[in-house]
Amino acid sequence: MPFSLEAYLEQKRLLVDKALHQVFRNPGNCPATLWNSMKYSVFAGGKRLRPILCLASAEAVGLPQAAALRIACALELIHTYSLIHDDLPSLDDDDYRRGRKTNHKVFGEAMAILAGDGLQTLAFEWVSKPTAYPAKHLKNLPLVVHELSHNAGYPGMVGGQVDDVLSEKQKPQLKKVLFIHRRKTGALLLASVKLPALLAGASRPKLKAISEYGASAGLAFQIVDDILNETGDSKELGKKAGSDRARGKMTYPAAIGLEKSKREVGRLTQKAVRSLKPFGAKAGLLIELVQYMARRTM
Amino acid sequence: MPFSLEAYLEQKRLLVDKALHQVFRNPGNCPATLWNSMKYSVFAGGKRLRPILCLASAEAVGLPQAAALRIACALELIHTYSLIHDDLPSLDDDDYRRGRKTNHKVFGEAMAILAGDGLQTLAFEWVSKPTAYPAKHLKNLPLVVHELSHNAGYPGMVGGQVDDVLSEKQKPQLKKVLFIHRRKTGALLLASVKLPALLAGASRPKLKAISEYGASAGLAFQIVDDILNETGDSKELGKKAGSDRARGKMTYPAAIGLEKSKREVGRLTQKAVRSLKPFGAKAGLLIELVQYMARRTM
Repeated sequence: MPFSLEAYLEQKRLLVDKALHQVFRNPGNCPATLWNSMKYSVFAGGKRLRPILCLASAEAVGLPQAAALRIACALELIHTYSLIHDDLPSLDDDDYRRGRKTNHKVFGEAMAILAGDGLQTLAFEWVSKPTAYPAKHLKNLPLVVHELSHNAGYPGMVGGQVDDVLSEKQKPQLKKVLFIHRRKTGALLLASVKLPALLAGASRPKLKAISEYGASAGLAFQIVDDILNETGDSKELGKKAGSDRARGKMTYPAAIGLEKSKREVGRLTQKAVRSLKPFGAKAGLLIELVQYMARRTM
Repeated sequence: MPFSLEAYLEQKRLLVDKALHQVFRNPGNCPATLWNSMKYSVFAGGKRLRPILCLASAEAVGLPQAAALRIACALELIHTYSLIHDDLPSLDDDDYRRGRKTNHKVFGEAMAILAGDGLQTLAFEWVSKPTAYPAKHLKNLPLVVHELSHNAGYPGMVGGQVDDVLSEKQKPQLKKVLFIHRRKTGALLLASVKLPALLAGASRPKLKAISEYGASAGLAFQIVDDILNETGDSKELGKKAGSDRARGKMTYPAAIGLEKSKREVGRLTQKAVRSLKPFGAKAGLLIELVQYMARRTM
């Protein structure tokens, strides 16, 4: 039977969902409202792109799936917290995401802030559990936590989000939008493929290779997102098409136009594929994934 | 010269401030507004109680000061992020803290949310840096991160904050207020003394002893805070005295009255002191600290 990427994605999505249900298997003494608020956003129909990239990277670097799933869940928890906070009234003020009401529209602003806070902490609690890893990987765990927090914090995701907010309604500039995308979404996507390599103790050339892949693929993904917001169908997007433009967001199409943006996606995809050379045949899935992401613009 | 606790506290406060300035020595590519917003609240005149407890615990368990300072800074960053978010309009809606304008009053709500987010991530980035620790302690680092995130997250601080918000204006009950205090402030105070013991690889009895100390001292501290809010001077508090009562907060004085609350502080202080028996003379500072905290109510 020929390889079907769609079937692969669906299979991994189910695997990640199952692992995330493990994270939420026991509320302990957690207040019910907080628990429900956190769960609501974690199970709100995400594509699980970061976890799936993480699992594909684990296959390339030879990390057991169970260990990779820990990291995969942490990535998704951090991604989810960032969406809850981004949607808040004082930030993007979004009422809908993926066609469902945003967290603060259901649970109120106070609970949305605290659910986001709790999800971020939970990510670090989940990924740092020492007994979840074989001894030979445990020694690399601090490095994994360190890299994850670096990419999720002010040098990465949070910093990018701040610049995204501050640059609204400013004249779009390629240099500025590149700087925002690399941190706001790129940093966590890069971490998604780099963390398994760090935990596995991958060689320096392989670490460099997969980081280059992550940086190119992560940027390509965000440009695709920009393009779809401009050209896509509101129903399919789960939010209003053209909302970036309406809000004066700094996007690739706004900075360099649609056609050039599409060409940039193609160039970055090729670059991502090329950078995987040191992995040989083991890079198959990562190549499929970045090409799949690029196809979304067609 | 006889030992002066006041001089000791001042010396350690300066040491912690110096270490926190190290955390903020280089903004890198951090947006200036975010950087200033984070720094504003970190250097807003805090007493550095959690870091000082952490340093005193390190002396008791024999952990080098440099390693303890890493943890101490992480504790203070998490404490600071929680204050920024607690003060937000949709939560406690406080305009002043320690006599200074709260973060969102200076930087706006969006930046206050993101500064809090960034400080939480920074805590984990700072504490998890592998090269900051001697090899013999490094193997315990995942456990430290795990315990810190557990105590700071929904099972601890965030969960307690949610229950605190939800129980406003409810009939005060000792059981409920105990449950809130143990998590909202108690969990991070407990972590302050437990984390150095975990990193140092302390024996099971010592770990149990210092955890009991942390739980009792942490609860006593919060009851003292409740009492001072009721009886204190607004200028000294840096916020309005009686604000807890005005807001219908669940406090010890509201639940069992002032006198019983003071007696409870005394009882918990003695319990904390007793629990330190396995440390012998090395527990001197921890004993001084909990007794000092209790004296604040007199």
